[in-house]
Amino acid sequence: MTPSPSVLLFDVNETLSDMAPMAGRFADVGAPTSLAATWFASLLRDGFALTVTGENPAFAQVARGVLGSQLTEHVGRGELDDAVEHVLSGFGQLDVHPDVVDGVRALGAAGVRLVTLSNGSADVARGLLDRAGVLDCFERLLSVEQAPRWKPAPEAYAYALEVCGVPASEAMLVAVHPWDLHGARAAGVATAWIDRAGGRYPDHMAAPDVTATGLGDLARQLGAGGA
Amino acid sequence: MTPSPSVLLFDVNETLSDMAPMAGRFADVGAPTSLAATWFASLLRDGFALTVTGENPAFAQVARGVLGSQLTEHVGRGELDDAVEHVLSGFGQLDVHPDVVDGVRALGAAGVRLVTLSNGSADVARGLLDRAGVLDCFERLLSVEQAPRWKPAPEAYAYALEVCGVPASEAMLVAVHPWDLHGARAAGVATAWIDRAGGRYPDHMAAPDVTATGLGDLARQLGAGGA
Repeated sequence: MTPSPSVLLFDVNETLSDMAPMAGRFADVGAPTSLAATWFASLLRDGFALTVTGENPAFAQVARGVLGSQLTEHVGRGELDDAVEHVLSGFGQLDVHPDVVDGVRALGAAGVRLVTLSNGSADVARGLLDRAGVLDCFERLLSVEQAPRWKPAPEAYAYALEVCGVPASEAMLVAVHPWDLHGARAAGVATAWIDRAGGRYPDHMAAPDVTATGLGDLARQLGAGGA
Repeated sequence: MTPSPSVLLFDVNETLSDMAPMAGRFADVGAPTSLAATWFASLLRDGFALTVTGENPAFAQVARGVLGSQLTEHVGRGELDDAVEHVLSGFGQLDVHPDVVDGVRALGAAGVRLVTLSNGSADVARGLLDRAGVLDCFERLLSVEQAPRWKPAPEAYAYALEVCGVPASEAMLVAVHPWDLHGARAAGVATAWIDRAGGRYPDHMAAPDVTATGLGDLARQLGAGGA
């Protein structure tokens, strides 16, 4: 049976934002475009490692530190700090995926409460949604900067539920990342996997309740109309 | 002051093993060679995420699951499982870095106890060290499969200390990965960063006690002779 959540918690990076332009930022500084994917996976790897050891680091600090390590192979020492900042600044100028605007409007029009919950800063989410013209569809923009720990720690989802004033049974996490869906499930929250490319869901992570090809498809599956 | 550990705990993957040949395995199945680095970072990302949610997954299961997701873009569905196994089998056939054999022998000859502690299986470490002819230099090959949690959780290092019968103050972790050194430090263990490429250590991780360009250099710095 498809869940009927009253609150949708959206992951932000890659789930709402299209990170494809980051490849161009790496090319700009003389690094291979493929480093964009390695960097982002490594950023999360280090953020989760610090979560394991009991810390709650700033996303931007980890992003910057990993970039500084990974660009040394491609950028001279004298240009390294400028290159790091050039790549990082691209992160604040991304746009949403093509399905996001209509999907978000359909979900919002159906009366579902829309909230973001990011390991990144709320400011990055605000800029992204503002540029897309859908900022007013969202009730709150939450970051683990205000939570005890990063997602996928249960405390991160519990923080969002507490702020929204709903039990886990009334919420659903929406994300492209299996690790995020796994964490939400472990915290008792229903899950929707956004699978835009037709991928394979890894069996080491808890399977999602709903799989959708985009936010419009999710809106249809949740009975919220859609494009 | 340089620490004088009685036990050296060696990380295995990338610290002892040279993972460069994995790129060829990805090329064999029609995927870009750059995916090797993204895959390994993503494998650790997912393993750490599961550590955060309280699980202790098998390294090979996570390795396989991430590969299955990441190869779908490059390999037909009918060939996907074979491609995953082809890449994975390369992991069991790696060789050590050029500095490892002489470095390990110098450390062993100086009377320091040598132990491996891997998030992967002890069998992979055994095969690697056997092929290199230095298996007899190691007192024990430990895996977090027998520990409560993966590195960098404190329980992983505590497990190794307990098996070796030494306090944290007598041990040193040797690794190329800052996240591993950070975790060891949090568990009270001294740390040596093996930096073969002349990288930049990220400031979001606890700085190492010793930085060495390879295991021979580490042996020299610890006063254990060396090549």
